[in-house]
Amino acid sequence: MIIQLQKDVNEQQKAAITDKAKSIGYKLSEARTQYGHYLIGIGKADFDIRQIASLPGIADIHRVSDEYKLVSSKWKVKPTVIDLGDGVTIGQGDLAIMLGPCSIEGEEQIRQTIQHLKETGVRIMRGGVFKPRSSPYSFRGMGIDGLKLWYKLAQEAGIKIITEVMQVSQIEEMYPYVDVFQVGARNTQNFNLLDELGKIDKAVMIKRGISGTIEELLYSAEYVFSGGNENLILCERGIRTYERSSRNTLDLNAVPILKEKTHLPVVVDPSHGIGIRHYVEPMALAAVMAGADGVIVEVHERPEQAHSDGQQTLNHEESVQMIERLRKTAQLRAEFV
Amino acid sequence: MIIQLQKDVNEQQKAAITDKAKSIGYKLSEARTQYGHYLIGIGKADFDIRQIASLPGIADIHRVSDEYKLVSSKWKVKPTVIDLGDGVTIGQGDLAIMLGPCSIEGEEQIRQTIQHLKETGVRIMRGGVFKPRSSPYSFRGMGIDGLKLWYKLAQEAGIKIITEVMQVSQIEEMYPYVDVFQVGARNTQNFNLLDELGKIDKAVMIKRGISGTIEELLYSAEYVFSGGNENLILCERGIRTYERSSRNTLDLNAVPILKEKTHLPVVVDPSHGIGIRHYVEPMALAAVMAGADGVIVEVHERPEQAHSDGQQTLNHEESVQMIERLRKTAQLRAEFV
Amino acid sequence: MIIQLQKDVNEQQKAAITDKAKSIGYKLSEARTQYGHYLIGIGKADFDIRQIASLPGIADIHRVSDEYKLVSSKWKVKPTVIDLGDGVTIGQGDLAIMLGPCSIEGEEQIRQTIQHLKETGVRIMRGGVFKPRSSPYSFRGMGIDGLKLWYKLAQEAGIKIITEVMQVSQIEEMYPYVDVFQVGARNTQNFNLLDELGKIDKAVMIKRGISGTIEELLYSAEYVFSGGNENLILCERGIRTYERSSRNTLDLNAVPILKEKTHLPVVVDPSHGIGIRHYVEPMALAAVMAGADGVIVEVHERPEQAHSDGQQTLNHEESVQMIERLRKTAQLRAEFV
Amino acid sequence: MIIQLQKDVNEQQKAAITDKAKSIGYKLSEARTQYGHYLIGIGKADFDIRQIASLPGIADIHRVSDEYKLVSSKWKVKPTVIDLGDGVTIGQGDLAIMLGPCSIEGEEQIRQTIQHLKETGVRIMRGGVFKPRSSPYSFRGMGIDGLKLWYKLAQEAGIKIITEVMQVSQIEEMYPYVDVFQVGARNTQNFNLLDELGKIDKAVMIKRGISGTIEELLYSAEYVFSGGNENLILCERGIRTYERSSRNTLDLNAVPILKEKTHLPVVVDPSHGIGIRHYVEPMALAAVMAGADGVIVEVHERPEQAHSDGQQTLNHEESVQMIERLRKTAQLRAEFV
Repeated sequence: MIIQLQKDVNEQQKAAITDKAKSIGYKLSEARTQYGHYLIGIGKADFDIRQIASLPGIADIHRVSDEYKLVSSKWKVKPTVIDLGDGVTIGQGDLAIMLGPCSIEGEEQIRQTIQHLKETGVRIMRGGVFKPRSSPYSFRGMGIDGLKLWYKLAQEAGIKIITEVMQVSQIEEMYPYVDVFQVGARNTQNFNLLDELGKIDKAVMIKRGISGTIEELLYSAEYVFSGGNENLILCERGIRTYERSSRNTLDLNAVPILKEKTHLPVVVDPSHGIGIRHYVEPMALAAVMAGADGVIVEVHERPEQAHSDGQQTLNHEESVQMIERLRKTAQLRAEFV
Repeated sequence: MIIQLQKDVNEQQKAAITDKAKSIGYKLSEARTQYGHYLIGIGKADFDIRQIASLPGIADIHRVSDEYKLVSSKWKVKPTVIDLGDGVTIGQGDLAIMLGPCSIEGEEQIRQTIQHLKETGVRIMRGGVFKPRSSPYSFRGMGIDGLKLWYKLAQEAGIKIITEVMQVSQIEEMYPYVDVFQVGARNTQNFNLLDELGKIDKAVMIKRGISGTIEELLYSAEYVFSGGNENLILCERGIRTYERSSRNTLDLNAVPILKEKTHLPVVVDPSHGIGIRHYVEPMALAAVMAGADGVIVEVHERPEQAHSDGQQTLNHEESVQMIERLRKTAQLRAEFV
Repeated sequence: MIIQLQKDVNEQQKAAITDKAKSIGYKLSEARTQYGHYLIGIGKADFDIRQIASLPGIADIHRVSDEYKLVSSKWKVKPTVIDLGDGVTIGQGDLAIMLGPCSIEGEEQIRQTIQHLKETGVRIMRGGVFKPRSSPYSFRGMGIDGLKLWYKLAQEAGIKIITEVMQVSQIEEMYPYVDVFQVGARNTQNFNLLDELGKIDKAVMIKRGISGTIEELLYSAEYVFSGGNENLILCERGIRTYERSSRNTLDLNAVPILKEKTHLPVVVDPSHGIGIRHYVEPMALAAVMAGADGVIVEVHERPEQAHSDGQQTLNHEESVQMIERLRKTAQLRAEFV
Repeated sequence: MIIQLQKDVNEQQKAAITDKAKSIGYKLSEARTQYGHYLIGIGKADFDIRQIASLPGIADIHRVSDEYKLVSSKWKVKPTVIDLGDGVTIGQGDLAIMLGPCSIEGEEQIRQTIQHLKETGVRIMRGGVFKPRSSPYSFRGMGIDGLKLWYKLAQEAGIKIITEVMQVSQIEEMYPYVDVFQVGARNTQNFNLLDELGKIDKAVMIKRGISGTIEELLYSAEYVFSGGNENLILCERGIRTYERSSRNTLDLNAVPILKEKTHLPVVVDPSHGIGIRHYVEPMALAAVMAGADGVIVEVHERPEQAHSDGQQTLNHEESVQMIERLRKTAQLRAEFV
């Protein structure tokens, strides 16, 4: 059960609602986000919703049978649109394209990528400054200084930034320079990180865990939403299976399933999803036909020289072709809705 | 190494080729199909291919580094086209659509399905007459009599038949009534069945194993091809993973990977691949954008009354919409090649 | 529901039982094995079991809520013991050890293995004469002639034979020379093969599928049992997962789970389960502590020269140590029951 | 390559070693732990080790071909023993038993558990005070106050504490009250947490990721070790697979594999590994026979009333039986080494 409170609800009214809910066997949690004020009821009893709906202070009330509540489409039928400002949105109906290198490597590389985005009309740039690496001896990214440099150049060009945050302590220092905080596949269930990202108002994109279920992804989003932040995007990036011909198994089934279960936008990462440069484009196109709201793809002027993930990174020429085809595919898909 | 022999090669010439190959460390297997006569060389030594190429009786010779040989695109670059007669082909460039119920249930149901195919211009009908079932107490299909009835009605309508063969002893009795023999996911590595299907000249579609690898699927095709039958189709139908939101995890990565590794046509089964009726269409469309040569989809006039798989079966109205969209998607995809 | 019929039940009595069952919503299948005569009722209705129990011709009646019936421990609490004759049993309480090479390769190898079994007091020898191989170009075994030779030597030594049957047509020719028919992991759901093995009276060991579930293994056993053969053994041999440090992931969880769900004996194959020679012994010992009724292990006088699976095969010296430890472990385990 | 430095090595000597390593293509990282001072060389070139070994300041030098270095048994053959003080050790040869509830719930429950440990001679108590939960609405543990209470009672009884740390900010507040910090399965690749745990001197037990590979577990341990902390324990707790009869698939293969690859002690968690109370004991015994240095098991005076994981928790009576059998099994296993 989700109770949307009126803006001017007072403590006395909340207490009355809580008491009433308790009396029918429901435990309420409060969530106050940038857009709304909610009480989430956890319980199993069947009851007449009007018993609560009539209490003062309530704007609306919904039954939500799913275990996750606030991210469910059962109460919020209209899709969530993420507005990054300057006319850049995700989930609006048109396809969001996010491009950039695996790792931010230096000024020259940033400039080349921004140039490529400008030429192709892409408005969101991806790139890692803090890199999670299996081995402690691998390149761990340029860190906060790399991010500041990137921000300066991106802002001049009107480009938005999406980049991975790995731990709670980074949120504050990264905040001024980031448009979308990405939660990586190894951190999907880092609940403390999710809790903290609930306290900010910038957009958060959560990647599905390395072998995370669709339900776990929704629960992780519920952490951020119930923590106070509705600006959420979900990302399918392939799961770990026994198959060894591809880096991961891109689970495009997740796209229509998520689109029905939640009101949040769904983005697909075909670069990690298949892990082989040559096959990234067809999987990006397939993602669009499956219903994705956007794609996030690794590109680099010279993939063979990239510090990481070069084998799954498109060069700019390949990227131009993919973007053109993505747009035509999105146009066709739009006819079908 | 694959050696294509001349049509009029004689035993003496073959012996000379075999001796030469042996002398450089290669063991040869002979394969004679409806279209060609080959010697497949298994070995690891590096050698000057001209040493063999100059021998009499040889039409062509190719190095093939893959472990599977005859199904590899390394020697046969031109895609294989399956010609079912009456202008029905698979792999020709246009999209092959195969529709029909999970199980053939009776004359009325067959007539309704054929009517639906006629109205939508679909030429290939799927349906099971021998059903593999986990439990011995489940419905096991109408058997050979169902197939004969189906054949009679399909032939009148100019419709081709694809149906599953479960064991060697069924091949002969099914042969007159079948256009494409389907090898099911539980039989992908039933090597005796594959051996026997190599001895016939009708088309064979092999489904990927329930948790089969892409490489194992190619090996299974190699069994049939080396046994004498080049009319082969591969089918991605979802793999078994930990994810429980869908029946299987449709691995669309397999499509571009297979299309590069082999010259055989690749078909996708979104019905089993996701297992939920409502999501079959988007996954079918995604399969086309990933590069599939065809799709095979379960449809039934009244899915809720189907003997099996009703939950993943489209009704005719849903099917009409899907077909129209599939064709538009295939048309767009064709522009990209 | 399982109805055990009296030996002298007549058709009229069976008809009366079937009618009664039908009237309460149950469909009955008949199964006649070497030991009993059963009617298996499939249905969901709740009913007073005495309504049926009092009918003439019935020896006993049991509710079985599991989807599989005859192999369930819900009706047959006493464990099934497989008696191979000459005092060789499986499931009797003591540990059954089955040893031998992956493939039968020739007389010398058979003699050496038998000698090793004699010296260690092991009574059951494993070995493949028909080999399922991913690639059509690999060694496919010595065939029926190898089996005849092996049988002659084994019989002289009082050794029992377990070997894999790959297809229906082999059953008859293999029958005189085999003590236990093994159904391999690629054939666990080859339902026609299971049907036919139900018609013979020799023991059958079914391996869990390459990525088969525990429930599917029980269903496959149900096929053989309901087909007429109660002499069944189940075998855990590792499942396919994402982990690449071992050939398969030996799922020892399956041992206590199967031991509770079914009355059939459970054997573990640590050779395929881990796939690395050096680790076979600890996994064999662990299997015993988990409650296995037996182990089946690959041994060869010179593993490095074996035609197949050499990397997971123990030499005779390693085997001697393992056997000794297996027996001590089984002895300790026996104290715990 | 691992270079063990002499205690009194000076900066000039280190610089000379680094230069030499660089000249043969190796990049060195420095690691200073509570027990040693190392330079870890990452590179691929083949070289004469004596070129470096003869430089002043070096105590010893080892080639380590594994990708992980400091946790490899290639350079440190003697097993690591974790000494928790008061005669409590892990990895010493005898079996370490860790028992306790999933969550610490209150004083009464702590007292009952400690009493149970005292009576059975178990010295290490497990329990969660910060609980990672999929849903934000579930019980998240008693927090630091619960830990302080627990510590007071445990210390009086001479019992050591192992408990999970979920984020960097908790380390400092937990430090005085913890003997072993546990890194949970959702945090195995939380590299920032691992980095910080490298800076303390208390023992750390790292659980394998929910679908982590054995190699990733070793890499995660390398993070902590190279960060400065050698007091490390690895824990197999089951992996996520398609099988649904058990909560996870306990991968006992990991035990002998890890025992050979690393010098660190290996503990098994059968409670999470199978997830069903009734089967925990056989899996614990199997773990010992596979070679585990210890087991960690959930027990509770009244499992049916536990706040979490009750279905996989033993009651004290079951625990007494398991402990007795574990010790007998460990005794037998010791004879085999």
